Amino acid sequence: MTDDDAPEEPADAQRSRVSRRNFLGAAGGLVAGAALVGARDQLTSHKAATVRNTDSDSVEPFYGLHQGGITTRPQSHTYFAALDVTTDRRSELAALLQSWTAVAANLTSGRTAAPLVTDVAAVEPDSGEAVGLGPARLTTNFGFGPGLFGRGAPDRFGLAKDWPVWLIDLPAFPGDELIESKTGGDLTIHACADDPQVAFHAVRQLVRAADGVATIRWSQAGFNEASASTGTPRNLMGFKDGTINPRTGAELDRFVWVGHEGPDWLTGGTYLVVRRVRISFNQWDAEPLGSQERVIGRHKVSGAPLGKSNEFDELDLEAAYANGNLVIPYDSHVRLASPQENWGEMMLRRSYAYNDGVDPLVERRPPGGLAATLDAGLFFAAYQRNPRLVFIPIFQRMAELDALREFTTHTGSAVVAIPPAAARPGHWVGQQLFE
Amino acid sequence: MTDDDAPEEPADAQRSRVSRRNFLGAAGGLVAGAALVGARDQLTSHKAATVRNTDSDSVEPFYGLHQGGITTRPQSHTYFAALDVTTDRRSELAALLQSWTAVAANLTSGRTAAPLVTDVAAVEPDSGEAVGLGPARLTTNFGFGPGLFGRGAPDRFGLAKDWPVWLIDLPAFPGDELIESKTGGDLTIHACADDPQVAFHAVRQLVRAADGVATIRWSQAGFNEASASTGTPRNLMGFKDGTINPRTGAELDRFVWVGHEGPDWLTGGTYLVVRRVRISFNQWDAEPLGSQERVIGRHKVSGAPLGKSNEFDELDLEAAYANGNLVIPYDSHVRLASPQENWGEMMLRRSYAYNDGVDPLVERRPPGGLAATLDAGLFFAAYQRNPRLVFIPIFQRMAELDALREFTTHTGSAVVAIPPAAARPGHWVGQQLFE
Repeated sequence: MTDDDAPEEPADAQRSRVSRRNFLGAAGGLVAGAALVGARDQLTSHKAATVRNTDSDSVEPFYGLHQGGITTRPQSHTYFAALDVTTDRRSELAALLQSWTAVAANLTSGRTAAPLVTDVAAVEPDSGEAVGLGPARLTTNFGFGPGLFGRGAPDRFGLAKDWPVWLIDLPAFPGDELIESKTGGDLTIHACADDPQVAFHAVRQLVRAADGVATIRWSQAGFNEASASTGTPRNLMGFKDGTINPRTGAELDRFVWVGHEGPDWLTGGTYLVVRRVRISFNQWDAEPLGSQERVIGRHKVSGAPLGKSNEFDELDLEAAYANGNLVIPYDSHVRLASPQENWGEMMLRRSYAYNDGVDPLVERRPPGGLAATLDAGLFFAAYQRNPRLVFIPIFQRMAELDALREFTTHTGSAVVAIPPAAARPGHWVGQQLFE
Repeated sequence: MTDDDAPEEPADAQRSRVSRRNFLGAAGGLVAGAALVGARDQLTSHKAATVRNTDSDSVEPFYGLHQGGITTRPQSHTYFAALDVTTDRRSELAALLQSWTAVAANLTSGRTAAPLVTDVAAVEPDSGEAVGLGPARLTTNFGFGPGLFGRGAPDRFGLAKDWPVWLIDLPAFPGDELIESKTGGDLTIHACADDPQVAFHAVRQLVRAADGVATIRWSQAGFNEASASTGTPRNLMGFKDGTINPRTGAELDRFVWVGHEGPDWLTGGTYLVVRRVRISFNQWDAEPLGSQERVIGRHKVSGAPLGKSNEFDELDLEAAYANGNLVIPYDSHVRLASPQENWGEMMLRRSYAYNDGVDPLVERRPPGGLAATLDAGLFFAAYQRNPRLVFIPIFQRMAELDALREFTTHTGSAVVAIPPAAARPGHWVGQQLFE
């Protein structure tokens, strides 16, 4: 457009001049990039939006038996959000879950939340920051908190009769310093992707879709080392984290997926416990290497259990020095978390590091000490078949005994039931609970 | 180790049993991966630490004329930190800069901060979370705030005579809602890398190295879309951000690098302004597409100036509709920020998105409205030759007029002088100022 061919300005305050193609239609191809390349009139800038790497192009399944982001090979970034349901109407809550399912099916496929509008006078159904970005292995799973079933709250939705008895608010553990505005929630969204902007975009569209029905209560972004998907990532304490995880199908069936115990609507689902764990970096970094390794119970560089050479060597919890002291100390993290010490139980840990800047909070060590400290640590996330039998008793003992408790502070927390996936298009997440 | 060959436990409370090779020596190869592969006895776990992608392996130069992370092709992640100097001794401050230079040279090359210790009874000089990770194109640049030169503070270090007169605390701009604990600082570290864990690790080691001399005041992590290095990334408003940037050598010499105007110690350096800009997502997402585009002055999908087709088409600020109204509105962001409207001046913007969760702050729109809102937005960073002549007057006008100001709130801020790089090993950043 130049001065020479100045057109009439649209009467509607310059609106509707730009006619956009519906280039990311919800019914279109699986990969946004493919659709974008065809939208030549929209994307003629010289570089952007056509170059992306392999991970950005990969799609994780959305429909099926289990929701995504549980057994999915870990992505490099996470964005978790917890929402409070503000409506009292069961129908509105069910409609939200239908809407979320439709939006999430689009987003995980690399599409926008809904087809983009073609009229500049209309509000875009998608905020646009992922235009040009691939699916990036996005997964989004939805969870239901105890409050949704009338636990500690009125039974607004008539769901008390469907309450899964293993879904209870976590008890107060020794040392907890939970921040109320980072704890709880009626609904959760756990988004993971190989691109932080794709994960952010997903949660943002889902929160928009909840307008009038639920509002965001808290959220937490996290990351892992870029190579996390190819091995056990190191947490910010410098140790590998997640070595002992259920991996085989039989292990997942035994330790992760809700089975015959039901309730029926949750069969094929699971439970998720998240904990926002701040690390006391000043104290941890001042510990000698040997002390750190005895706290964890593993060698720092290799990840091997103390006394062993390889990360995946089995824990030998009986090994002792000649003087009788245990090689893996009685209060080491790995011992207290081990299946051997916990009736054979396991959870599928899928944690990320978080980095929220600097916090002037009081330090736990020395007690009452005041210091600007990094507000960073671990966003612990563990999927499991029964939090009452697994996370709660295991962590209760760890909160009392774990040597690591001197270097960590739990500041946020949530527990939810994760229903099974939408089986196929036309179905929706939570349908078995509401219908 | 098994029960059968139980040795004597070391008298020193199980210390010093594990003898580690100095496998990441500071004088070793440039790429940590190469050194690690040789450290077979340390890394025999079956997958980790040998698989990494190309970006993880790439090294950005550390020594030379200019510090890194300025004209460097943008990495996917940033971690910025501002510190308060706690010592009054010039010699300690100079020693810190020497130490930082040595540590940063190691880190940017993919090494640990210092050679790892071989004795489990000793404190590790490196916290270890980047062991096994490549350099990931890490850059770290150091900046000096006005306070270091006795501006608004006692002249503790005898540097008042070396004060660069363009380095002044930013004035209060209309609409500022600065949080004191996210503003200012005597020293800054701007780390960028293609792996968030590598960026975090770098800042953490540098903060550790400052122990007793400076303490962390505030910090901010940020990200860009994973493909940001191949085109102009979209910010969280969904628009491309950074299209008009100095790029050629002549432009960088004119707009970024301090030249003959000095002071001499800063020649080849630059200035950095950072602003933590929260986006009012609820309000922005409720604006029609055409309204958003008029606020920015560009088309959302293509990034082209309004009325044009391609992102890099020149702004035609004179173009008008037949009724006389400007195609690029008088109060649009791109017009107010344009060189044409600012005496031809430019700054090198190198911004990232940030996502710090949820904030229950008061919203600006509607005024006084209370809502849980995303504490996310833009971590604006702009390198420039003279903040008094560039950022301050340009942003003063934008803070008054820019249509975007209704959707953004500046909550953090810093301005620093960025000295030139250490020319070669043996030199250090800031040496010209202190010697």
